[in-house]
Amino acid sequence: MDADEGTELEVLSEEECLGLLGESYVGRVGFIVEGRPLVLPVNYLLRDRSVVFASGEGTKLRAIRQHPDVAFEIDFSRPLFHSGWSVLVVGLATVIEDPDELARLENGPLRPWARGARTHWVRIEIERVSGRRVPSA
Amino acid sequence: MDADEGTELEVLSEEECLGLLGESYVGRVGFIVEGRPLVLPVNYLLRDRSVVFASGEGTKLRAIRQHPDVAFEIDFSRPLFHSGWSVLVVGLATVIEDPDELARLENGPLRPWARGARTHWVRIEIERVSGRRVPSA
Repeated sequence: MDADEGTELEVLSEEECLGLLGESYVGRVGFIVEGRPLVLPVNYLLRDRSVVFASGEGTKLRAIRQHPDVAFEIDFSRPLFHSGWSVLVVGLATVIEDPDELARLENGPLRPWARGARTHWVRIEIERVSGRRVPSA
Repeated sequence: MDADEGTELEVLSEEECLGLLGESYVGRVGFIVEGRPLVLPVNYLLRDRSVVFASGEGTKLRAIRQHPDVAFEIDFSRPLFHSGWSVLVVGLATVIEDPDELARLENGPLRPWARGARTHWVRIEIERVSGRRVPSA
């Protein structure tokens, strides 16, 4: 493989990363279950310096309670141009308990796509965020 | 939030999951670094029952050598229809060493998008694959 192929990888600033997080709506949570990593997509909102998503009482929620260190990733690809970007968040996930905040979230724009009560809201406080971009050639 | 919102979640068969893996080209590897999950996007190929991707001598490769149990995820969203699907693979990642297989991969269709020698190829043997779909309302 030719090392000269493609364009130079760009490192994104924290500001750019937060901007991209604010514009996107589907991301993937990486978490640990029985010592193994799992990755599942969620619809999310960026609120202040947190990623917030809804979750039923399933694998994600159980895992997060046991092992709150999680990762959160978004990306975008333009295959025709062999270009794209990705942003990675690491942080601590907590189940939101505050009634006022829960009421705001229930009345907010984030709606489940699939039927079924997603009775819990999870916040990932952004501890570190990094990103990179492969510009179009 | 109304539990009747949205359509019913469908569980995908293994055959459907492998079909979607064969049609896609960007996925995310979930792996463990110092006890914490990380998620990074890769371009990949499905070969037999394995996901194959190229990697430089960086975080991913070091992590995989130490902790070869990884996850691999692909998804697709149609926000206008609040629909989409996702597929999750779990399996063991190994760095490919066989010279014949390396030669085939070097001459194959998978090309790096960013400049820089990606001197290693990694195979994730699919141990378990699962998927779900949220159909259009």
